[in-house]
Amino acid sequence: MKYIAEGLGTFFLVAVVVGSGIMAENLSNGNNAVALLGNTIATGAILFVIIKMFANISGAHFNPIVSFVFLLRKEIDNRDFILYLFMQFLAGITAVFTVHYIFEVEHIFQISTNVRGEVPLLVSEIIATFGLLTTILFIREHDASSVAIGVALFITAGYWFTSSTSFANPAVTIARVFTDTFTGIAPISVKFFLIGQLLGSLLAYFNFKIFSNNK
Amino acid sequence: MKYIAEGLGTFFLVAVVVGSGIMAENLSNGNNAVALLGNTIATGAILFVIIKMFANISGAHFNPIVSFVFLLRKEIDNRDFILYLFMQFLAGITAVFTVHYIFEVEHIFQISTNVRGEVPLLVSEIIATFGLLTTILFIREHDASSVAIGVALFITAGYWFTSSTSFANPAVTIARVFTDTFTGIAPISVKFFLIGQLLGSLLAYFNFKIFSNNK
Amino acid sequence: MKYIAEGLGTFFLVAVVVGSGIMAENLSNGNNAVALLGNTIATGAILFVIIKMFANISGAHFNPIVSFVFLLRKEIDNRDFILYLFMQFLAGITAVFTVHYIFEVEHIFQISTNVRGEVPLLVSEIIATFGLLTTILFIREHDASSVAIGVALFITAGYWFTSSTSFANPAVTIARVFTDTFTGIAPISVKFFLIGQLLGSLLAYFNFKIFSNNK
Amino acid sequence: MKYIAEGLGTFFLVAVVVGSGIMAENLSNGNNAVALLGNTIATGAILFVIIKMFANISGAHFNPIVSFVFLLRKEIDNRDFILYLFMQFLAGITAVFTVHYIFEVEHIFQISTNVRGEVPLLVSEIIATFGLLTTILFIREHDASSVAIGVALFITAGYWFTSSTSFANPAVTIARVFTDTFTGIAPISVKFFLIGQLLGSLLAYFNFKIFSNNK
Repeated sequence: MKYIAEGLGTFFLVAVVVGSGIMAENLSNGNNAVALLGNTIATGAILFVIIKMFANISGAHFNPIVSFVFLLRKEIDNRDFILYLFMQFLAGITAVFTVHYIFEVEHIFQISTNVRGEVPLLVSEIIATFGLLTTILFIREHDASSVAIGVALFITAGYWFTSSTSFANPAVTIARVFTDTFTGIAPISVKFFLIGQLLGSLLAYFNFKIFSNNK
Repeated sequence: MKYIAEGLGTFFLVAVVVGSGIMAENLSNGNNAVALLGNTIATGAILFVIIKMFANISGAHFNPIVSFVFLLRKEIDNRDFILYLFMQFLAGITAVFTVHYIFEVEHIFQISTNVRGEVPLLVSEIIATFGLLTTILFIREHDASSVAIGVALFITAGYWFTSSTSFANPAVTIARVFTDTFTGIAPISVKFFLIGQLLGSLLAYFNFKIFSNNK
Repeated sequence: MKYIAEGLGTFFLVAVVVGSGIMAENLSNGNNAVALLGNTIATGAILFVIIKMFANISGAHFNPIVSFVFLLRKEIDNRDFILYLFMQFLAGITAVFTVHYIFEVEHIFQISTNVRGEVPLLVSEIIATFGLLTTILFIREHDASSVAIGVALFITAGYWFTSSTSFANPAVTIARVFTDTFTGIAPISVKFFLIGQLLGSLLAYFNFKIFSNNK
Repeated sequence: MKYIAEGLGTFFLVAVVVGSGIMAENLSNGNNAVALLGNTIATGAILFVIIKMFANISGAHFNPIVSFVFLLRKEIDNRDFILYLFMQFLAGITAVFTVHYIFEVEHIFQISTNVRGEVPLLVSEIIATFGLLTTILFIREHDASSVAIGVALFITAGYWFTSSTSFANPAVTIARVFTDTFTGIAPISVKFFLIGQLLGSLLAYFNFKIFSNNK
């Protein structure tokens, strides 16, 4: 059942990211700060909910880069890693199509035209992903029941303080290629995000290891 | 006293949904994203409060579809089910009239003219109700004291990521027929919402059962 | 020291209510929904903080009507009641003058010209005060550590769903007479608020008593 | 490792304060109340996260004035005090340059031209810093696990109710000199902020001591 849990959680995560972006854009009369506020509050809220729902079942990753770090830490095995990633990517893309349907967006299948930039965005994603994983790894040590609220609030901050708005999640990144709405990302920008996420996660992994070895 | 608790809780819930919608519409100069922000924050906040207030007395349903799932799960009996529903519907409609009075809306008795759409909205309510009940059923298992914040935050997200703004509650849906303000729903749209809510709750009930049987 | 605690807490409460109103009005270009959002978030936040700070010292009332209900419940004596009220009113008015000074408002001493209405507002304050005290009395029974967040979120909702924006506090009400800014209240409106607060508190007191006697 | 922890936490704090200010200003079409909402939510969120992350490692100060009060209370020694301050100032300034880079601001190195006022701002910072330290000292006594949320919410309120928007942190103050964006502060205003912060912290220290001696 843990694979289903990863799928359901990632479905809700991506549905909220993309759906709240559409709702916010539809209602905000072009004031993008107000749109981002709605997008932020909804995303932070659902992160808390899905982590509390499924933490005891799958570990509540909903994010290939989180699964990757837990693979490095040998907390999950290769088989789980591959099946987690499969479910995360599948659920993310399914969520985008579902959201397009319920919001009656003109085409269910879309490719984003929203070019988001290059190297500075890569650095931004390094910071975002480093921060997300540092939040998870450090808070889990002493106060595991606060990880859900910690992740929710780190991403809440991340939407505002990183120029890339903290995707910090390859499944969310790929899913967002398939929507040409507020939260979309053009294929040409994807590589900067994915490389940043990979580097940020490695940095967080090694940083945490150094802290653990020097207590 | 549990019936009174269901009545008081549902009264506050509907009063906040409808009242904050009126307040938000009055103040927002036509920026509906700002209005939805106010509506969202107030609704999320009161959900936490009423669940914490009455969880030990009535179970804090305030929602016929929640009572229905607890009936299926044999956690409440037929008599409680009927009296809970009676109190929820009665309190919801009373709340609408009360809010109209304190906001000095022109007519206390109104019927909404706000047509909200058809099948995509039904699907949206399936997702919303499935999510709400999945939140309750899964979080209750391992961390019962977090159900109140879980429900509050699921609906916070739901207001933004579902095209139907996540009514997910037949008592709230029916009560909202009686207000021609920001949060109203025209009678012609009601059936799509109620059918979606029923289907979503069944889906959540069976999904949770499968998870429970496959631990 | 408990009297000092009541004074400090009420000082921060009123400073936040009035100060955030001035800040919000200064910045919001006439969009009152945005101003109310700022005012709401700040007020909810400080309520949590001051209750957590002083709950173990004074009970963290910061509100004459709360002290009144605890007097009725014989949890505080007459002497404490009078000194609590004295500190609450004194601190409230001091906070208004201090806020006027730091925001460089033209006159430190002002009387509000903001007429807020009559009987519907009285009913609104009955609902607000009933809700606030019901929140405190019921949550305290089973989950005392959640009272701070409960009160913070009830008032968060109350700012939006009651037409009176939930003053629900005579010390705050009187203090707000002395500011002709966003959150002020003209002397002529005060009696409707105070009577509503008294009636709401009595209703909450007796309702809780009935619940307690019928467990 | 505690020095690294102070550096990482302060880096995230300043990056969020300054970065969310830039994001908010870029998106808000001149509505500063909306910009301040984004800035507030992001700052409150990251404060919770960094305190939960590092409380067990360094005490999670991220603020020279907090370290100063813990020096007065003899909870840290002179060596830690100096190294904490060094890391806090260094990390703060590094964060500003990093944020300028990822947001592609024209010049990485800037000096703010945002003059913020004189004596009333000093008084405002006394209140803000007194409140922040009173929050920490009092909540720590009875409910240490709530300090993170307490600090986050005090600053959330502080952004709105103090005319200085509650810097309450010399490392943040100095770092903000180096950005000519939404959250910058001109060098000429700095002394009023630093003196206010020093006075506010002493007031909080002695006030808490009096409370502790008169229990």
